[in-house]
Order: sequence, then structure tokens, then C-alpha cells
Amino acid sequence: MTIGVLAPFFTHPSAVLLLRGAEERFTASGYDIVLYNIGRPEQVHEQFRNVVDGRPDGVLVIAMPPPERELERLLAARVPIVVVDFRYPALSHTYIDNVAGGDLATRHLIELGHRRIAFVGDPSVNPYGFDSSVDRCAGFRRAMAKAGLEIPTAYIKEGPHARHVAHRLTAELLSLEHPPTAVVTASDTQALGVLDGANNLGVSVPLGLSVIGFDDIEAAEYVGLTTVRQPLSLSGARGAELLLEAISAPYPLPAPIAEQLPLELIVRKSTAPPPK
Amino acid sequence: MTIGVLAPFFTHPSAVLLLRGAEERFTASGYDIVLYNIGRPEQVHEQFRNVVDGRPDGVLVIAMPPPERELERLLAARVPIVVVDFRYPALSHTYIDNVAGGDLATRHLIELGHRRIAFVGDPSVNPYGFDSSVDRCAGFRRAMAKAGLEIPTAYIKEGPHARHVAHRLTAELLSLEHPPTAVVTASDTQALGVLDGANNLGVSVPLGLSVIGFDDIEAAEYVGLTTVRQPLSLSGARGAELLLEAISAPYPLPAPIAEQLPLELIVRKSTAPPPK
Repeated sequence: MTIGVLAPFFTHPSAVLLLRGAEERFTASGYDIVLYNIGRPEQVHEQFRNVVDGRPDGVLVIAMPPPERELERLLAARVPIVVVDFRYPALSHTYIDNVAGGDLATRHLIELGHRRIAFVGDPSVNPYGFDSSVDRCAGFRRAMAKAGLEIPTAYIKEGPHARHVAHRLTAELLSLEHPPTAVVTASDTQALGVLDGANNLGVSVPLGLSVIGFDDIEAAEYVGLTTVRQPLSLSGARGAELLLEAISAPYPLPAPIAEQLPLELIVRKSTAPPPK
Repeated sequence: MTIGVLAPFFTHPSAVLLLRGAEERFTASGYDIVLYNIGRPEQVHEQFRNVVDGRPDGVLVIAMPPPERELERLLAARVPIVVVDFRYPALSHTYIDNVAGGDLATRHLIELGHRRIAFVGDPSVNPYGFDSSVDRCAGFRRAMAKAGLEIPTAYIKEGPHARHVAHRLTAELLSLEHPPTAVVTASDTQALGVLDGANNLGVSVPLGLSVIGFDDIEAAEYVGLTTVRQPLSLSGARGAELLLEAISAPYPLPAPIAEQLPLELIVRKSTAPPPK
């Protein structure tokens, strides 16, 4: 009675929240979790092969697309698979509308009166197939376009998903001749880095710079970060429930179920009208 | 090239920090991590059997003693094993002096002038073999005895390791005829619950009640919690290094290495002299 869980960067705060929701359901149902961490691009295939070899009763894939060959092997072995926090129509999955989330974050800043708004996110091309940052940036661009606002090229900053990287990118933004008055980020982790960058340059948040995150990890509440909340624990829990149902259903596997989870703007203390 | 990692409650904040330290080292060395979560007492044996069956190159055990039979099977198969954050002399391990830590926390409160000090910790008997809470309580008792202070029976509170449980135990403490003016806790998670309990009854911290935690998880800094810091990430990282060394050493396995890590009192805003 084991569940194989594939998770990129399993100690990142958002992954921990997804895993916490899933873990509760699996443990309550008597299943053991065996988690395969993916920390480097080469590990994607290695770890998917490892999970196939482990012959689990079910497989949960966290926040990434499964590679095709290993997916075929799992399906051939009649192992139910569910994806959480990633749009993957061929399998049952939970997901959010990342474009709408980026749009929601940006509109909040526009409604406060901001016109010079930057975006800090992940590289748009990455070896894992992550697409949430790209989609959130698309939502940012959509909201800006609808409001008739231009986005200078220097206002789109991309770098590896880490707090210290976002700190560095913020220093670049704030040293521009016309720096932004607000920053939309692809995650709370990156928003924390923006706060670090502003703090390091003596720019006060929110009076000198507004910052909005995405996810609502635990730290967001502690630091008073305005953010777009996605229900990460619930996403993991619903993924686990879909997988447990698929495991107990008679073969053939039931038709894939797609479950979209809601987003919510949480206004705290990191956003305010722009400086005069 | 896989490392089997056994971790009870792998999404708890202190486990995440231990795992983060270990994960960095293993991933940098090209090893894949397969993590076996233990969320119920029955899973201890199941998951140790699963890790043996998975034939890893090495095994890291987080914060608990390995069960004897599975340990023998791993040793018979010449699989190197390292324990982190648990005193286990038969194997290489990292550990802290939990008695000294409980003593350090308690002396801080005594030096501030507190005389009525309570302790909130885990059940002293538990099916996992955890002993850190018991040892921290022993340090609490030692410091109180050295200072000539009595501990009323009602001042020792035990319950499952969870924030909401510590919240409930604090309500009990604060409704005593002679409530404590300070609380030593077995972990930051429990200290957060004590803060919740005080807040819920309108008792201000630190003016009406001092609270000290243990671990220094991320939330401790955000809420201004005074705590005993243990270097959790370092403990995981050193454990990983000891295991990588053992894997690359020629058979027979090298003699066990025990590495004690330092504790540090971090004074923030949750402790102050007692009310007059």
C-alpha cells in the first residue's frame, strides 16, 4: 500500500503546502508515501523511472508534467496517476488559472493608481516544463494592455526561482532611470526577495514601492505581504482524493477529472497608492 | 545512485529544514533522494522495510531511532546508514544536547526574574522513540531545581506535537488559580500555540506572559519569538556529508562518527521580566 509522489524541489514552501494536504489524506487512508525529489533537470527521467520500478499503487505528480515515456509505462501497468497544481488534460488533475491570477494581481496595483509596474518571475524556458510563471506574466501583460499601460522591456525580470535572485533583480529595477512604483511577482518567495531588495536600498514598502506575491505561503502572512492566494493544501488534498478514488475504482481507469481551484486577492500591507 | 531518507512527519517545519540541508548536498553530488514518510506509528516498520527493498546506496534517518531488525538487514546488505538529529551511538549521527537546551531556555527566564515557570511539551511516551521533548523537559527541571524553584504538577503540560494542542494546554495553564508567568516549550511549533492561547485570552506577550521556543524555525523570526536555536539545516547537511563519505569509503564501514551541534539562545520579543 504505497503511493509514489514525484515532487520538484520538495522543500520549497509551496511544495510543502501541497504535500501537507496530500500527506494527510494518504496517511489517513493507510497508504505509505514514498516521495521522489527532483532537484536537477537530469533527475526528471531518473526519478520517474525509479517510481515505475517501485511498483506503487498510485502516483501523484506535483506541479509538473510527467515525461511521456514513463507515463506510458505507468499507464501500461495500470497504475492510476493524478497531477496536482498543473494543467494536464490527459490525466485527472487540479489546477488554477495562472493567467487570471497574474491579471488579478496587476489590476489591484492599477486600481491603486500605479502606472509603472514591473514583473519578477522565473525563466520562461526551463527544463522541467513549469509554466506557472509564464502564465502569470501573461496575465500581467493582459491587465497592463487592457489599461493601456506600456511595459518597458527592462521592467520584465526573469531569473531562477529563489529569494536572493529576486533581491538582485530588484536592485536592477530600482536603479533604472525611471524605476517602477510597483512589482508583480510570480511567487511569494520572489516577493520576499523584492522586499529584501527594496529594504537593502532604503526604499520603504509600500510607500516607495508596492509589492504583490502569489501563493500565500506561511511567511506571506507574517510579513504582511499582499498576495494572490491559491489553496495549496486543498490542491494536494483534492489530488490525493482523486487518486484514492481511482485506485479503488474497477479497471479501466475512470475518465480524467479536471478540478479548477479558486484564487483570492489577499490585501495586506505591501501595497498602497504610488508615491506622488 | 539513490539515497533512501526516512523522515517522520516530513512536512513539519523542523523536518523541512533538516531535509533542505540534506537535499542540497545529495543533489549536488548527483544522488536522487527517495523519501519515506512516517505519519503513523504502524508506518515505522513498513517504511523501513520499503527502504530496504528499494536497495538504496545509503540511508539517512531523520530524528528517530531505526528499528533493530531493519537496521540489521541494512547493515547485512552493507548499506551505509547515518542518523541526523538523534543520539544513536551505534551509527554515525548528528545530535544536539537537548537537556542543555531545556536548561538554557529555563535559565534565561529565571535570570529575567521569573519564578512560576511552566513547560509545554510532547507526551513522554510515544511510539516513535522520540526523546527530544523529554530531554528538554529534564533540562527545564534541572534549571528549576538548581535555582531552588518548585514546579507544581499542573505546570507540566504534555500533548501531541501540534500548535492547536499547545493552544489548548495554555488555556488550561492560564486558568489555574496561580498561573505561570512564563512558559518553556519543547518546540517553536508549540510556542506558536502558546502565543495563540495567550492571545485568545487577552494575555499580552511578553508583558503578561513570557514564552520561549526551541528550534528557530522560519516563523520564529517573523513573530519575534525568543528561542533556543539549533542548526537544523546544518544538521541535515552534515548528516548527508557523513553518509556520502561512508558510501565512498572502502568496506568495512568506517567507525561511527558522532557530531554534536551547538545551541544558541536567540532573544527576541516574547520574553521579558515577569509582571509586578
